[in-house]
Amino acid sequence: MLSNKPEILKGVFAAALTPQNADLSPNLTDHAAHCRWLLDNGCDGLAVLGTTGEANSFSVGERIAIMENLVANGISGKTMMPGVGCCAIPDTVELTKKAVDLGASGVLMLPPFYYKGVSDDGLYAAYAETIERVADDRLRVYLYHIPPVSQMPISIDLIERLVKAYPDTVVGLKDSSGVIDNMTSIAKKFPGFAVFSGGDHLTLPLLQAGGAGCITAVCNIAPHWLQELYQGWQGDKAQELQDRMANLRDIIISFPQVPALRAVKARHTGVDGWRPSRPPLPVLSDADSKALYKKLDDFGFSMPDQALAAAQ
Amino acid sequence: MLSNKPEILKGVFAAALTPQNADLSPNLTDHAAHCRWLLDNGCDGLAVLGTTGEANSFSVGERIAIMENLVANGISGKTMMPGVGCCAIPDTVELTKKAVDLGASGVLMLPPFYYKGVSDDGLYAAYAETIERVADDRLRVYLYHIPPVSQMPISIDLIERLVKAYPDTVVGLKDSSGVIDNMTSIAKKFPGFAVFSGGDHLTLPLLQAGGAGCITAVCNIAPHWLQELYQGWQGDKAQELQDRMANLRDIIISFPQVPALRAVKARHTGVDGWRPSRPPLPVLSDADSKALYKKLDDFGFSMPDQALAAAQ
Repeated sequence: MLSNKPEILKGVFAAALTPQNADLSPNLTDHAAHCRWLLDNGCDGLAVLGTTGEANSFSVGERIAIMENLVANGISGKTMMPGVGCCAIPDTVELTKKAVDLGASGVLMLPPFYYKGVSDDGLYAAYAETIERVADDRLRVYLYHIPPVSQMPISIDLIERLVKAYPDTVVGLKDSSGVIDNMTSIAKKFPGFAVFSGGDHLTLPLLQAGGAGCITAVCNIAPHWLQELYQGWQGDKAQELQDRMANLRDIIISFPQVPALRAVKARHTGVDGWRPSRPPLPVLSDADSKALYKKLDDFGFSMPDQALAAAQ
Repeated sequence: MLSNKPEILKGVFAAALTPQNADLSPNLTDHAAHCRWLLDNGCDGLAVLGTTGEANSFSVGERIAIMENLVANGISGKTMMPGVGCCAIPDTVELTKKAVDLGASGVLMLPPFYYKGVSDDGLYAAYAETIERVADDRLRVYLYHIPPVSQMPISIDLIERLVKAYPDTVVGLKDSSGVIDNMTSIAKKFPGFAVFSGGDHLTLPLLQAGGAGCITAVCNIAPHWLQELYQGWQGDKAQELQDRMANLRDIIISFPQVPALRAVKARHTGVDGWRPSRPPLPVLSDADSKALYKKLDDFGFSMPDQALAAAQ
């Protein structure tokens, strides 16, 4: 009965930024254009509405409008792994149902993240309640392990319980812990379970350990470089391609990451509306923007304007 | 022009629990009855939908229904300081507008809590944007400082900026840091700014430093004891009343706090539906419930069944 279900995802996914209008509402037109550009320039898929996409700074209604707009603009749900995890189970359920109905190949699901120090029993109950309420055979959940932000880690024991209870539904995980040993342990312990690295710099070692790919923030500006790395991870240049990507990431994270990526995108598109995040995330200052641009220029980085086919 | 605005709050506030139905929806009837009982037995007001009330485990729609139901059941908005702070500004604005429209004397406002390590500039921008969008002269904001849970502390510098920019709106703070020096520093630095302790055990020292009162979880079962302490904080028995309350709290927090309070309330009312929290918070096990009841019995604690007037 798997015919109805999406394939397990793999490859290069952008944790896509969410552009805004002057009143801080999501700029749906620019968002669809950005997602199209990402797919045209190296992305296998789109992890829209994740941490980089500031999902939790948008209401459920805004998040649904963002997802619907992509499909309305011809971006297939098949490419999508939207972030859906909220603090409240009814919100997570509503977003997940919508994503599945839009044909999303998967959803990236944070655990409820308000309370801290919650037991695995509590997190298991939350995931189980959510999956049971969605009650849809097409649902494929990718767990979202991002302890530096959520402060609610997803343990290997919890993964094991969920995979055992929902083997056709809980099919993967994004690991943004920054701890390579954690992600390789998961990839090795659960063969067929799709583990994605949340860090550009850890893409190669995770692929070498059997990982499925990467879902990263810097992918918003360098989908071409990540795709080259993904295509070439078993080749002679693998380490070189990984180092290049890691160096680019180092430049970006020497500034606040989301505002920095927005500033690069603003320069690339000439659209100043790309700059502001929704509070509480800040806008990159003019001085920092200048310093960032200089670093990127000195490094020889430029964003692709052509479809990836031309670069391959 | 203050005539239209609520008084600054003070006294004993319960961080009211939220009872649920078997399907985990909020039990509105039991919630109104609990809130009425709290007011009849020592509470000056109700901090509904805070951390103890599992507010962030409920959707915006559920939270609005909970607030509306209280007013529909004759509980005056004047007694209320509902929790309204969400990760997304539109959600916080919607809840805040509703609370103000229902006549709430104040709202308890968490900072956006998904991102961590956000600067004071970012938090200031979030609070300012929220207050400007609500744009209501009747709004009185009590900041919610609960770093063990939100992981987003509210610094004294941030309070100063907000009080300077919105002197008639940002009028107080609940401090659930557990750090008495922090709350007394704030009370002393900002005369007239209403500082509430989130810890039963810190009620007396904060009152002695000029604090406004307390907003606590254990108040759900012991509003009478907290009111006695509040009435008597300058009297001979103040330390004794404080110690009694601190000892009760010690018993409760030797178990998971919210599930433990629910279990006590279940025994008191005979309503088993009081037990389950919404995931990810757990239900207290039968063994733990028995152990908790025995500790409380040995301590000589019982919940009041009469209006406080009888006890005074």
